[in-house]
Amino acid sequence: MKIILIGASGTIGKAVDAELSPRHEVVRVNRKSGDFQVDITDAKSIADLYARVGRFDALVATAGHVHFGPFEQFTPEQYELGLRDKLMGQVNLVMQGLKHIGDGGSFTLTSGLLNEEPIRAGASAAMVNGALEGFVRSAAIEMPRGLRINVVSPTVLEESMPAYGPFFRGTKPVPAREVALGYAKSVEGAQTGRVYRIGWSRDH
Amino acid sequence: MKIILIGASGTIGKAVDAELSPRHEVVRVNRKSGDFQVDITDAKSIADLYARVGRFDALVATAGHVHFGPFEQFTPEQYELGLRDKLMGQVNLVMQGLKHIGDGGSFTLTSGLLNEEPIRAGASAAMVNGALEGFVRSAAIEMPRGLRINVVSPTVLEESMPAYGPFFRGTKPVPAREVALGYAKSVEGAQTGRVYRIGWSRDH
Repeated sequence: MKIILIGASGTIGKAVDAELSPRHEVVRVNRKSGDFQVDITDAKSIADLYARVGRFDALVATAGHVHFGPFEQFTPEQYELGLRDKLMGQVNLVMQGLKHIGDGGSFTLTSGLLNEEPIRAGASAAMVNGALEGFVRSAAIEMPRGLRINVVSPTVLEESMPAYGPFFRGTKPVPAREVALGYAKSVEGAQTGRVYRIGWSRDH
Repeated sequence: MKIILIGASGTIGKAVDAELSPRHEVVRVNRKSGDFQVDITDAKSIADLYARVGRFDALVATAGHVHFGPFEQFTPEQYELGLRDKLMGQVNLVMQGLKHIGDGGSFTLTSGLLNEEPIRAGASAAMVNGALEGFVRSAAIEMPRGLRINVVSPTVLEESMPAYGPFFRGTKPVPAREVALGYAKSVEGAQTGRVYRIGWSRDH
C-alpha cells in the first residue's frame, strides 16, 4: 500500500513509520521536512499536498496542536487554535482526501484519552478529542467506495513522560511502538468507525 | 434558585421550563423573545446578557444549531457553523458565566446521541456533540468555587418525529418532558462532569 503519514517526524509518527514501512510504501509528510510538507491548518496547503502525492491507499494523521492552560483563563482564541489545528486540520485531510484515495482505502486519525480521562489544563484537548471521535464514528457510516475511517486514542507516551509526567501522575504510559499497533490495525485491518484506545480503557 | 434558561421557547426548553419553574425562578432567554435575548454565537451578546441578568445560580443551555447534509458534500463552512453555534456558543456561555454565577452553581449544556449513534447527514452534529461531552468532563475537574457542569444527551424527541422521523428509523423517541428530567438532575443534584443520556445508553 501507498500510505501518506502526516506528522512522520513526531514521536508517534516515527513509530508508525517503523511499524508500517517494512510492509508498505510510506510517504513521509511534516510541516517542514520529509518527502512532502503540509500545513494542515491551511486548506490550500492540503490541496497542494494531494496534488503532488497523487493516488494513495491510506492516510495516517499523527499531527495536530491544541493549547494547554488553566480552565478559568482559557480564551476563545485558545480554544480556536485546537479547533483549527488538531480538529479541522485532520478533518480537512479526510474531506479533501476523499477525491484522491483509492477504492477501499482508509483514513486513520489521532485523538487521545483526555476527553474521557481529563487532566488539569486540558479543556481544549478534551473538546478536540471528543469531536474527532464523534466525527469518525459518523463519517464511517457514510464513506463511499468501501473507504474506512478510524481514530487512535493513545494514553500518554513513555517517551513524553520527561516533559509531561507532572500532568499525568497515576497514568500508566506506553511506548510509542505499542501505540503504532493501533494504526496498523486500522490501516491493515477491515474495521471502520472505531476508536482504538491504546494503553487505557473507557470504563464509565 | 435563579436559573437562566437559554432556548426557553424550544421544544426541550419549554419542557425544562415546565419542570423547573414550579420550584425555581426561571429567566427565559431566546434569540428573539423571552425575558432577555441573546445570540450565543456573539461574545458581546453573551456579555450583555450576563450584565443585564446579574447574579444567578444555574445556567441551562438548550440552544445551538449545526448543519445537516450528506458527508461527501460537507464544506469547511458547514462544519464551521456547528463549531461556532452549538459548540462554542455553549462553551462561551460557560466561560463568560464563570464571572457571574454564584458559589456552588451549575452549568447544564445539551449534546445529543449522534456522536455515539450516528445517522446519515450527521457528521457535524457528531463532531459537536463529542466535543461538548469532552469539554464538560474536563471543565468539571477544574471548576472553581464548588461550581458544577454536566451535559444532557437526549435521544430524538417524540415531538420531533413528524419532521425528523425518516432520519431516525429504529430509534425509540422520548417525550420532551422526560428529557427535562436530565436537566433537573443536573441543576438540583450534586453530580458534576456527567453526560446524562436520556432515552438511550452507550453500550459499546
